[in-house]
Amino acid sequence: MATHTSAPRPPAPSRLDVMNFLNEIAGRYPDAISLASGRPSEAFFDVQAQVRRIPDYVAHLQAALGRGFDATFDLLAQYGPTNGLINDLVAAQLARDEGVECTPAQVLLTAGCQEAMALCATALCPDPGDVLIVRSPTYIGITGVADLNGIELASFSCAEGGDVAQALADCVAQVERQGKRPRAVYLVPDFDNPTGAVLTRAERERIIATCVAHRIVVLEDNPYGLFRFDGEAVPRMATLDDAGCVVYLGTYAKTLCPALRVGFAVVPPTLFGDARAAADLLDALSRAKSFATVNTSQFAQAIVGGVLLAEGGSLARRIAPAIAFYRRNRDAMIAALAAAFAPGDGVTWNRPDGGFFLTVSLPFEFGRAEAQCCATDYGVLTMPLSFFALDRAEDRRVRLAFSNADPARVREGVARFARFVHDRIAADERVREAA
Amino acid sequence: MATHTSAPRPPAPSRLDVMNFLNEIAGRYPDAISLASGRPSEAFFDVQAQVRRIPDYVAHLQAALGRGFDATFDLLAQYGPTNGLINDLVAAQLARDEGVECTPAQVLLTAGCQEAMALCATALCPDPGDVLIVRSPTYIGITGVADLNGIELASFSCAEGGDVAQALADCVAQVERQGKRPRAVYLVPDFDNPTGAVLTRAERERIIATCVAHRIVVLEDNPYGLFRFDGEAVPRMATLDDAGCVVYLGTYAKTLCPALRVGFAVVPPTLFGDARAAADLLDALSRAKSFATVNTSQFAQAIVGGVLLAEGGSLARRIAPAIAFYRRNRDAMIAALAAAFAPGDGVTWNRPDGGFFLTVSLPFEFGRAEAQCCATDYGVLTMPLSFFALDRAEDRRVRLAFSNADPARVREGVARFARFVHDRIAADERVREAA
Repeated sequence: MATHTSAPRPPAPSRLDVMNFLNEIAGRYPDAISLASGRPSEAFFDVQAQVRRIPDYVAHLQAALGRGFDATFDLLAQYGPTNGLINDLVAAQLARDEGVECTPAQVLLTAGCQEAMALCATALCPDPGDVLIVRSPTYIGITGVADLNGIELASFSCAEGGDVAQALADCVAQVERQGKRPRAVYLVPDFDNPTGAVLTRAERERIIATCVAHRIVVLEDNPYGLFRFDGEAVPRMATLDDAGCVVYLGTYAKTLCPALRVGFAVVPPTLFGDARAAADLLDALSRAKSFATVNTSQFAQAIVGGVLLAEGGSLARRIAPAIAFYRRNRDAMIAALAAAFAPGDGVTWNRPDGGFFLTVSLPFEFGRAEAQCCATDYGVLTMPLSFFALDRAEDRRVRLAFSNADPARVREGVARFARFVHDRIAADERVREAA
Repeated sequence: MATHTSAPRPPAPSRLDVMNFLNEIAGRYPDAISLASGRPSEAFFDVQAQVRRIPDYVAHLQAALGRGFDATFDLLAQYGPTNGLINDLVAAQLARDEGVECTPAQVLLTAGCQEAMALCATALCPDPGDVLIVRSPTYIGITGVADLNGIELASFSCAEGGDVAQALADCVAQVERQGKRPRAVYLVPDFDNPTGAVLTRAERERIIATCVAHRIVVLEDNPYGLFRFDGEAVPRMATLDDAGCVVYLGTYAKTLCPALRVGFAVVPPTLFGDARAAADLLDALSRAKSFATVNTSQFAQAIVGGVLLAEGGSLARRIAPAIAFYRRNRDAMIAALAAAFAPGDGVTWNRPDGGFFLTVSLPFEFGRAEAQCCATDYGVLTMPLSFFALDRAEDRRVRLAFSNADPARVREGVARFARFVHDRIAADERVREAA
């Protein structure tokens, strides 16, 4: 467990750097198996059916507006409300699928969840000395927003099984000792990217208590929560929040498809008991949204709305085949890892109950050079955890995604990765023996 | 002609404030005729046909990728290149319709032109003391970006027929005398929003010369240029730029429809002769885009791409009926104004050769209260030019949009507006007589 708040830290590689690295390698080695990309599998998009849902949403809107079908379609194609058009359907789906109860007015539709993250981080941290806290390693989308907008970051790390709530509390205390103001903490409590970790209910409650005590907003980002394979869902932090502490962030990129670029933020009814402060935050987000992208594509919103209508307000049925597929992939990956490594190898991994990723710990440093070597010499693409880290604590871990390859390719990808690891362990041994 | 660079200036009402004002009034007085909104007319959207173009674009992409149709559709639905997917088609259309020659690699697709403006303004003005210059009055989208991102604004104003290039040069000189760095100037050279004014070729050339001399990037925003009713097109500033001074901004919101949220920025091949600097700017825009919205909705891009393919690469044929409609509306508005006001009334207006707006000068101040009175007592919605101004020079002008009502409603709207003006002139006269 460690807190990092002070410069100098190595500049975090941006999403773009990482994507460029991945794309370049994927382009040069098209036969490589990618366990690097956390894309959802295309096999369940059914995009042509999604696009056909636009008229369904128009018919729904038509009933609400009392206009003709064509006139309603024309209105859909116009500029629209800054905060979104399908807020009622999103609110209903969140209540149904995630237990997150909110009014349509609490919802702000955004051009993907990335925009929601950018709007929230900049609105909550407007002044020098405002600090955004993240867990390290974390999703590069949020650290990129901070770097780009000059928002100071503080990070805490916590090994699996460690006291994550205490690590956060220590980080808050350290930021405050420096005379700075921790304003927000970004978390992916369910099947974290990049680690796959899930916060327990008790951890969530303690984190909320800390944040309420220090008036820190929790940005709960939940792209993977619906993709649970085993066990019981842990209540979303937003549902454990009585105090007005949690802004809930989400996306339809994984449940429907990324090309929609439809995400959202849900602002709580009060901010720490203050309804006016919550309304002011929503106004600030809306104002910033209007100067960022005016409003979210209403065609894209209509696709989401049409699917939600067709599915009776829940995405559970629709994503069930994808969940089964991701579960098979995870099982194939765990089985392949167990087959490839013996206890004495010093290689360990976690077994997430859902999501898109797991992490493997290695007995040697695994960085850009090693990922490059895996790609070029072993035909497998992976993501070093150091790409996601704000400290040097993650140099021996690697993220493997099981979302975008079928079981056979997962097995072959892990086998290739294991060959690299064994070759490297053997080479290190030879060096040690020679010394 | 005047330059304004120093605080305090009244905070510019944001796009959101103005939109809220408009929406609130429009909601409370649904029978009012709107000459306020600069929306394109829905009559020419033909949105259902637009949406049906998605498969056409998929077929085009399929040929390029050599994959099956369904697999190509699935790829379209995934995450995609940060800089866009349809850059080749956009570049071809710009060459064809606007004379703007560029390579696909110079184009960055954005979530509407608003995002392009935000990315460019923040990339070009990263440091304190960097100044963004605008003409006053100007489009509130750009002043909102500046206010939101803490970018210092300087503005110049210039009456119709005045020396606009000199006014800009004076503004640049004043900013530099203050020890600050003018980095960019935002202009709508064709049918300006809100004034409808068009810069002459000579004015464009002199502005470019000033900007090249001071290494200031011109952000040429051109949403209305294709909507010319009379006379010859003036060359786009981007086509007059040999030096690498102009970033060209555009949108498909007016030519196709706003709900797409597809716009773009075209970065010149060099920045002031420096190819590396231009590449660095494009990289900075791309990096910022990746943290703002990841990439532009590929469904929306596919609609634009499909329409461009169906139209053989030019939008001229497609928008011809809309141009004819807007021309009739402009003519109806000019005729109604000429019928309503006598030379002695002190009411004048311009006659733009295209675009969506004209401006009327009144013999009294016309602000928020007067706009409110027009809405509530006369049933007509208008936009005070002071909403767009960075100084107090625009207090007697009002913007009338002729893009979103048919000729009969334009005539009736102008008649209502004229009744307000005559009543107000008469009331002012009674006050003067009583005094």
